[in-house]
Amino acid sequence: MSDPFSDLMAFQRETEALSQVAGRLSWDQETVMPRGAAAQRSDEMAAIEGVLHARRTDPRVGEWLAAIDGAALDPAGQANLRHIRRSYDRTMKVPAKLAAALARLTSVAQGVWAEARANDDFAAFAPTLREVLALKREEGAALADGGNVYDALLDDYEPGATAESLEAMFGALRPRLVALRDKVRGRPAPAALSGQFDEAAQMKLARHIARTFGYDMSRGRVDKAVHPFSSGSGNDVRITTRTAAEDPFNCLYSTIHEVGHASYEQNIDAAHLLTPVGAGVSMGVHESQSRIYENQLGRSRAFCGYLFGQMRETFGDIGIADAEAFYGAVNRVHGGFIRTEADEVQYNLHVLLRFDLERALIARDLEVDDLEAAWNDRFEADFGYKVDRASNGVLQDVHWSVGLFGYFPTYTLGNVYAGCLHAALRAARPELDAELSSGDLAGATEWLRAHVQVHGGLYEPRALIERATGRAPDEGPLLDYLEEKFTAIYG
Amino acid sequence: MSDPFSDLMAFQRETEALSQVAGRLSWDQETVMPRGAAAQRSDEMAAIEGVLHARRTDPRVGEWLAAIDGAALDPAGQANLRHIRRSYDRTMKVPAKLAAALARLTSVAQGVWAEARANDDFAAFAPTLREVLALKREEGAALADGGNVYDALLDDYEPGATAESLEAMFGALRPRLVALRDKVRGRPAPAALSGQFDEAAQMKLARHIARTFGYDMSRGRVDKAVHPFSSGSGNDVRITTRTAAEDPFNCLYSTIHEVGHASYEQNIDAAHLLTPVGAGVSMGVHESQSRIYENQLGRSRAFCGYLFGQMRETFGDIGIADAEAFYGAVNRVHGGFIRTEADEVQYNLHVLLRFDLERALIARDLEVDDLEAAWNDRFEADFGYKVDRASNGVLQDVHWSVGLFGYFPTYTLGNVYAGCLHAALRAARPELDAELSSGDLAGATEWLRAHVQVHGGLYEPRALIERATGRAPDEGPLLDYLEEKFTAIYG
Repeated sequence: MSDPFSDLMAFQRETEALSQVAGRLSWDQETVMPRGAAAQRSDEMAAIEGVLHARRTDPRVGEWLAAIDGAALDPAGQANLRHIRRSYDRTMKVPAKLAAALARLTSVAQGVWAEARANDDFAAFAPTLREVLALKREEGAALADGGNVYDALLDDYEPGATAESLEAMFGALRPRLVALRDKVRGRPAPAALSGQFDEAAQMKLARHIARTFGYDMSRGRVDKAVHPFSSGSGNDVRITTRTAAEDPFNCLYSTIHEVGHASYEQNIDAAHLLTPVGAGVSMGVHESQSRIYENQLGRSRAFCGYLFGQMRETFGDIGIADAEAFYGAVNRVHGGFIRTEADEVQYNLHVLLRFDLERALIARDLEVDDLEAAWNDRFEADFGYKVDRASNGVLQDVHWSVGLFGYFPTYTLGNVYAGCLHAALRAARPELDAELSSGDLAGATEWLRAHVQVHGGLYEPRALIERATGRAPDEGPLLDYLEEKFTAIYG
Repeated sequence: MSDPFSDLMAFQRETEALSQVAGRLSWDQETVMPRGAAAQRSDEMAAIEGVLHARRTDPRVGEWLAAIDGAALDPAGQANLRHIRRSYDRTMKVPAKLAAALARLTSVAQGVWAEARANDDFAAFAPTLREVLALKREEGAALADGGNVYDALLDDYEPGATAESLEAMFGALRPRLVALRDKVRGRPAPAALSGQFDEAAQMKLARHIARTFGYDMSRGRVDKAVHPFSSGSGNDVRITTRTAAEDPFNCLYSTIHEVGHASYEQNIDAAHLLTPVGAGVSMGVHESQSRIYENQLGRSRAFCGYLFGQMRETFGDIGIADAEAFYGAVNRVHGGFIRTEADEVQYNLHVLLRFDLERALIARDLEVDDLEAAWNDRFEADFGYKVDRASNGVLQDVHWSVGLFGYFPTYTLGNVYAGCLHAALRAARPELDAELSSGDLAGATEWLRAHVQVHGGLYEPRALIERATGRAPDEGPLLDYLEEKFTAIYG
């Protein structure tokens, strides 16, 4: 005898397992795949994606969902049901023809974008972006059912979030961030790290730091790739980082960032393995983990003291006299155009710009032809200097080319959540700085594990943060933290 | 408008792509997978295998096959149709319940075998082997449709081969091989290589030798694993090898062997990519490529001269005075119990033993309880000394535990085919030794590419070898080659 919930979950576990297989294939592609295998790999990836799509739209899922009595389930069962229902409803709302057209177009569009970026030529990308935007507007309208189109897209990455609530939060962030940037800009900057640092030694130190932050190497691994990323769930969660001889901070802080993502996946209650609850609950909460590991913990004065010692042990004299100067070098606020290279003060300004522009694009308040000018104007207003070329401006991110409208705000939402969690962690753990200064992350990562990570997808994102911190999340703690930290450094 | 052959081939291409995905997952498991991921990986592998099984038994395949007019197809189309039909017919003949029971049992049996081998305890494995054998007899009977049960199993690995034809061939091999072994045993053996050889340097030399044999590194890669293997088809064909400080020949000749397998897959006409014709046609032909690369080419006097220079360049003085002594060390006939470590003279005696025993098991002429004694008696008769323990005897190979009855004879068939191909290659290429002695494999591998590898599964195995050599394959050339070579070395 079978019951519909058990049948649904058995089917879903296989789907999750196949989705992990697709993830392993992506990891392979970015790390170890022979370069001549690229075209064949597209066929392999398309085949597994086709299998996943067929399972996600399998009519049996609809029948099981209709037959299940949700009230009779335990909390994990109810949460799994909620995730499966949300995903199934979304999938069924998008006409198959539109979904296929989007998949086809975005796989081509990424290549067009990459070439346009290499040539600093937005006009070469514009026609393709127009097509992507048209299909995403169509998809958003299908999902929104008469409601807000942007919210419908955003919901894919941050269930429950709305543009309106984010506008209020981001609206409060922007003036204080711009003011902080202005204040910092007027003061003498700490000296930057300079010199050449052996790349193999960087990787060795990165692996040590990854372990220090609690990353379980027996269920993961660290490799080099063009872009740092974290991949997989449960007991096989791998990260990548990159190295450049002149910039060991890139390698080390990319590693810590990805360890935040990976630890979240590794630390979810094993009972939820290969179910929807057994994965990070949203992009925003995921980013909260990567950012609190990277910034509030990894770039703290206390941890920088420990890292300074590790750097000198690894590389000898690094041309920086003491831990305080090292802390300044790590947290140096610097010019530049690229979001992924931005410091803590300016990072969210990059995101807010994209959030406003992509809402305008989706709402038809802005057209693709005017996008580059709108980007450049806004950049100058927030950063105080002009974009010098398209690859440093509107062409820098891959997201829009692959249809990720509604994704950008989750970066800043993650920072806001990280701010809230950091305040709660400090309150719960007065000994935190003493621990960090000796490279002991066990207390901090255990607090995050127990309050956030272990739950996986059991609670909705905002409810999870509220449960962990005891209060509804808002931008206050992040702003207070940034102002206090950077006023002290640039005092 | 669609036609049934196009529909079938489109479906089949996706199946082949998914089968490659499963292969990538196996590669990952043996090379880079974190050790803590093993249990989760079983679920992932089971999910992709489930998808493949569903596709192989999809009733649409039967409908397409019934609707296709094979006579209207080109030769590649006819060959693909033949492969798909054979595979579908075989799959449909085996009851789903039996197939599932076999899959379940063999995945457990491998673990039981490994533990029994570690404890040298055949009795601990016997009950499980009895179960595997019972199911394989049942499967063979279902496949044989009243015909020969062993032939039906053999057909999975070597289409068209029969036990009767192999008995004749192997019956001619055995006395001459035993006589050669006796003769060699009575003469003084060349000195063995001894010393310690840096393992990273072994890998570097192995990669160089792989390239020398024509392996395309832009569509493959060489890694270390517990067992050497080749994995994948077309433009992503990876090999593994292993290293031991005291035995660089293991690393180098495992590499050359796997390069033979991998080159076969890499060199198939790209028009057949991701179709049944786009893969090696049988285990026997596959082994013919690995063995001719490894033995007739790689262990030739001429190539050993080149390798001697490479070894000295890599490791300095290796304690062997000249190329002739090095050739002797490479081809030293030695005692031992293990098939995979056997020299060219004795290797096929190991296989013949297994072939006779497994036919007796399938035919119920031998029962599992008597297997160990039968093994030990036969070993002493052919090799002249007694098996000292089960892990050196009946428990040494994984094959039977995972149900591979009918697989062993393809190893010797591969050697026989390699003998035929080698004779034809020598006749076509009088300059071969001059080339080999300078490390120039281009002519030899091009001949094998053009006469064997490029065709993939276009021709049936025996027809392919006959086409390449101009005569029906038989054991004569292999025996002549072995007697001439080892009489000279041990002269």
